[in-house]
Amino acid sequence: MCRVSMLCGMDSHDGPLTRLRRGHEELVLDLLRKHGRLSRGELGAHSGLSRTTLYDIVSGLLSSGAVVASAPDAAPRKRGRPVETLTLNPGAGQAIGIDFARRAVHVAAANVAHEIVGSASEPHAGDLSWAERTDLAQSLVRSLTGGALEFGALSAIGVGVVGPVADPGGESAYARDIDGLPELLHKRFGVPVLLDNNTRLAALAESVWGAAAGSEDVLYLRLSHGVGGGLVVGGSLHRGAYGLSGEFGHITVDAAGARCECGGVGCLETVASVGAVLDSYRAAGGRAHDVSALVAALDSGDRAARDVLRAAGSHVGTVLAAVCNAIGPGVIVIGGELAAAGAALTGPVEEVLSTDVLPLSRHRLELRQATLGEVGGALGGIGLVLRESSLLSRYPARPDPEEDR
Amino acid sequence: MCRVSMLCGMDSHDGPLTRLRRGHEELVLDLLRKHGRLSRGELGAHSGLSRTTLYDIVSGLLSSGAVVASAPDAAPRKRGRPVETLTLNPGAGQAIGIDFARRAVHVAAANVAHEIVGSASEPHAGDLSWAERTDLAQSLVRSLTGGALEFGALSAIGVGVVGPVADPGGESAYARDIDGLPELLHKRFGVPVLLDNNTRLAALAESVWGAAAGSEDVLYLRLSHGVGGGLVVGGSLHRGAYGLSGEFGHITVDAAGARCECGGVGCLETVASVGAVLDSYRAAGGRAHDVSALVAALDSGDRAARDVLRAAGSHVGTVLAAVCNAIGPGVIVIGGELAAAGAALTGPVEEVLSTDVLPLSRHRLELRQATLGEVGGALGGIGLVLRESSLLSRYPARPDPEEDR
Repeated sequence: MCRVSMLCGMDSHDGPLTRLRRGHEELVLDLLRKHGRLSRGELGAHSGLSRTTLYDIVSGLLSSGAVVASAPDAAPRKRGRPVETLTLNPGAGQAIGIDFARRAVHVAAANVAHEIVGSASEPHAGDLSWAERTDLAQSLVRSLTGGALEFGALSAIGVGVVGPVADPGGESAYARDIDGLPELLHKRFGVPVLLDNNTRLAALAESVWGAAAGSEDVLYLRLSHGVGGGLVVGGSLHRGAYGLSGEFGHITVDAAGARCECGGVGCLETVASVGAVLDSYRAAGGRAHDVSALVAALDSGDRAARDVLRAAGSHVGTVLAAVCNAIGPGVIVIGGELAAAGAALTGPVEEVLSTDVLPLSRHRLELRQATLGEVGGALGGIGLVLRESSLLSRYPARPDPEEDR
Repeated sequence: MCRVSMLCGMDSHDGPLTRLRRGHEELVLDLLRKHGRLSRGELGAHSGLSRTTLYDIVSGLLSSGAVVASAPDAAPRKRGRPVETLTLNPGAGQAIGIDFARRAVHVAAANVAHEIVGSASEPHAGDLSWAERTDLAQSLVRSLTGGALEFGALSAIGVGVVGPVADPGGESAYARDIDGLPELLHKRFGVPVLLDNNTRLAALAESVWGAAAGSEDVLYLRLSHGVGGGLVVGGSLHRGAYGLSGEFGHITVDAAGARCECGGVGCLETVASVGAVLDSYRAAGGRAHDVSALVAALDSGDRAARDVLRAAGSHVGTVLAAVCNAIGPGVIVIGGELAAAGAALTGPVEEVLSTDVLPLSRHRLELRQATLGEVGGALGGIGLVLRESSLLSRYPARPDPEEDR
């Protein structure tokens, strides 16, 4: 068992000195797990520990192998010595992310140093049972890890599912029609299971590994068969009071518009989903059964293709501008199949942003295309494990049944 | 000097046992400062300390006088013993909030037990200098505290100003045209000064003492001469990447609408500010120079008054629904002068919310009228001090100039 695991097996009989030291060690390990790679200076700033204490704690963790120091960057710094960075020992454990999409299972694995070990996807029929999907996920995970799962003490599985999730990010989370899934996964993998909406997890992944890497305040919009999104606020997934934030697809853009699946009228999803855009294109005389065909038409100079993307982009821009004025993100990331249309879509979006976002913030706002593709949700599951689940929360104070509340 | 102050004077020569205990004491004090009043059970849940440790720490704090226990609630509980609650010693220090509004200074004082000591307001000419406004604030604060400011070690001043603030919540914050204000205030009051936008502070105040007391996710909209707002996310003020969140007044509601002061077109502010609504009323033949006259007309059955409020309310509803779908708040609070119109305004708002908010969340959403009135901004300044400034952040690790970053 690696030192990281040992550290977590806190013994209540330890003396206060040992507990003080372990508290510092846990703080350092927790920060490295959340941030991936930190310099000693960054670690000092985040932990608030004095330089002397930090030196002592890090030395102990380095010699035990729980933490490893990287070779300084090859690129010369402008001044001073090269910076050594620290990560958790990549061998100390893996985190697994699984995205149960509508008709496919995506999995990804990363080590605790935030290095992505691999990802894999497999499509399936829409009516596959949860037990069968879980089998599929398990065999995909095995293919990534060579059969040997090395979870270690820090690890868990982060799982994305379609639709709203009650108690998102928690272990007891459930989504509609998936009662029992967390228990099923927990039984199969033997580690804690954290559940959230898969589009929201894709937002987190883009902020950790993707288009918005390093940004703390990110608005992610996915234009796919459905339209949804997620918000990263101060580096954490934003969930709202009832786990229903990021529902950008159901913001009204046309009060006299079409009826939406959600029960509303004229939602963004009714004009900017893949289906809605393809319908518009066909209504204008175009022929395309998927986004690739639409993009091909666009590339060949098809005016109708450009017009329908412009119309969709304008509506997207209106919604994004409203949300930007409300929450002031630093980066907007657009993902989903429709993002493949590139500037034909994002150009009109930016035009609306440039008129509708408060002048004081509009020049600071960056619009980027998502980079993680279909494994974004699975990677976000890993992000959930590494970023959101606190090491300390794994060792909660025992509940006191006699205690008055 | 009270025990609370003494605790904060941490001595770096203390041994590790003392430091461990002080760490626990600080955690308990910090939680009480943020939450105001907690039962021992709640304190255990928030702190993660074991029942035995907590008992020991709280006993020490009670006997030193830093913490006081309240008499159990008079109302009988359904079962079990009555619950004793704990607060910081109300005598241990005060926090002051100041709101520098456009033409008035509002101040409020509360003790560290979250009990509001008092508030006061004084209107002034729009061209008063910052030095004169600060004089005014200082004399108002003196009138509240009987001349004797008892800041104690935990205290600071939270200050609200009109317009966007760079580095909101920070000590080095500055807003447009108020360079030097934090330094001026710091010199006058001799304690740290935390600055933020005054409308956003009103949002925080409503979530601590007002209409949304106890809610962690609050959307506050102020309909006044300007239209703005603020978001409380997970109990903390949300600020966005550049301190420009909550700009609901500049969300576009009519792309063919009037030019807004912000440079945009058809912003909510152009149709739902006090001025815009009164203009509409006069254009419809009504006579009213302020909201009171409009409300009086409404009460006398004036149809034009009802119609202009309905139109404004619909636009407000459209914006609130969009923001709700994006961020999923638990409570919406509407404040500002126009909120005095009551159901004539909020009725149409609720109608739109009931069609435009995602069906899954709309029945959970509560719309309430603000309760704190014009002193909300000043109270929010206190909220900023009590909720947002960490005790620990007052004792940062000393910067290491030699450290590589």
